[in-house]
Amino acid sequence: MEYPSKLIEEAVNEVAKLPGIGKKTALRLVLHLIKEQESRTQSLAEALTNLRSNIMFCKICNNISDEEECSICRSHRRDKTLLCVVEDTQDVMAIENTSQFTGIYHVLGGVISPMNGIGPSDLKIDSLVARVSANDNQIKEIILALSPTMEGDTTSFYINRKLATLPIKITSIARGVPMGGDLEYADEITLGRSIIGRTLFS
Amino acid sequence: MEYPSKLIEEAVNEVAKLPGIGKKTALRLVLHLIKEQESRTQSLAEALTNLRSNIMFCKICNNISDEEECSICRSHRRDKTLLCVVEDTQDVMAIENTSQFTGIYHVLGGVISPMNGIGPSDLKIDSLVARVSANDNQIKEIILALSPTMEGDTTSFYINRKLATLPIKITSIARGVPMGGDLEYADEITLGRSIIGRTLFS
Repeated sequence: MEYPSKLIEEAVNEVAKLPGIGKKTALRLVLHLIKEQESRTQSLAEALTNLRSNIMFCKICNNISDEEECSICRSHRRDKTLLCVVEDTQDVMAIENTSQFTGIYHVLGGVISPMNGIGPSDLKIDSLVARVSANDNQIKEIILALSPTMEGDTTSFYINRKLATLPIKITSIARGVPMGGDLEYADEITLGRSIIGRTLFS
Repeated sequence: MEYPSKLIEEAVNEVAKLPGIGKKTALRLVLHLIKEQESRTQSLAEALTNLRSNIMFCKICNNISDEEECSICRSHRRDKTLLCVVEDTQDVMAIENTSQFTGIYHVLGGVISPMNGIGPSDLKIDSLVARVSANDNQIKEIILALSPTMEGDTTSFYINRKLATLPIKITSIARGVPMGGDLEYADEITLGRSIIGRTLFS
């Protein structure tokens, strides 16, 4: 496509590098910014540069944070005996939204995925092992809350093996039919696992 | 939603102000930027601020431009007797992509839309009339290429009335069944107009 201006072209190319945004959408966004006041674009650009240069990762759990230790790790109201291992920050936010978890987290920063060239050393697994081994924080249970995919399962197995010698209970989040889902539309693997993993009807 | 960091929250709020981007997509984009190198975010922010502070509008046709006069108005190879009136820059790009038009443009910057509080004075209609009236550039035909909507038609009628006294041919782009479209799926208004506006089969 030919653009009426080099500036537009550069901006479109930059915006189109974002995931899920193609050239057409990028052009729409860029033309929108031109129509709006200049201060809008400035505050957008500032928010992004500010974010990127000042963001930190909690030195305990590796979650995104404004300070050296994140608000969850600093909190005295969280149950420090219960540690939930997740893939990334979005998972922490999703679990926090449920209000069902009062423990602390460990953010791996991804899952083992040989296809994408991500091995155990690229993730925060060593720091997890060190954190649990030191255990001055009295972790009693580790919940593996990784995605129910091949990569997630591989990562769970790997972590389980690494921690097997420690006197700690290792659990995994329940897998089964989603709430509100219709049984006849559940895929056979999910339904099969929901039968294997059946629980007492209390 | 609760964000793990104030910086994230600010960035998400700014990004979510863009059209068609909600909080969830904004969060995904922002977390993507955090994962990438810092230079990526910087070049994105720079491209946007550069664009917004340096962009100009052609003083002749009001199209987006890097200079005072856009490349189409400056070109000696364009037919200066043929003027195409369009709503915005995207329309200029769409028509340029067809390679079927060799004339020049006039970009209105919108269409008359009382519902959105846009009247004729908010658009570049006066400058169009002045441009055509002066006519030192020998415009012989004006093509109204506005969207086939209520607002587009209103704007076309308004411009037509404003220019009626001038010795200039005013035409409108053809409306009918789109190429490759199946007749049985065309709506009745489009099909009706395609019969009224039938042309000689040459």
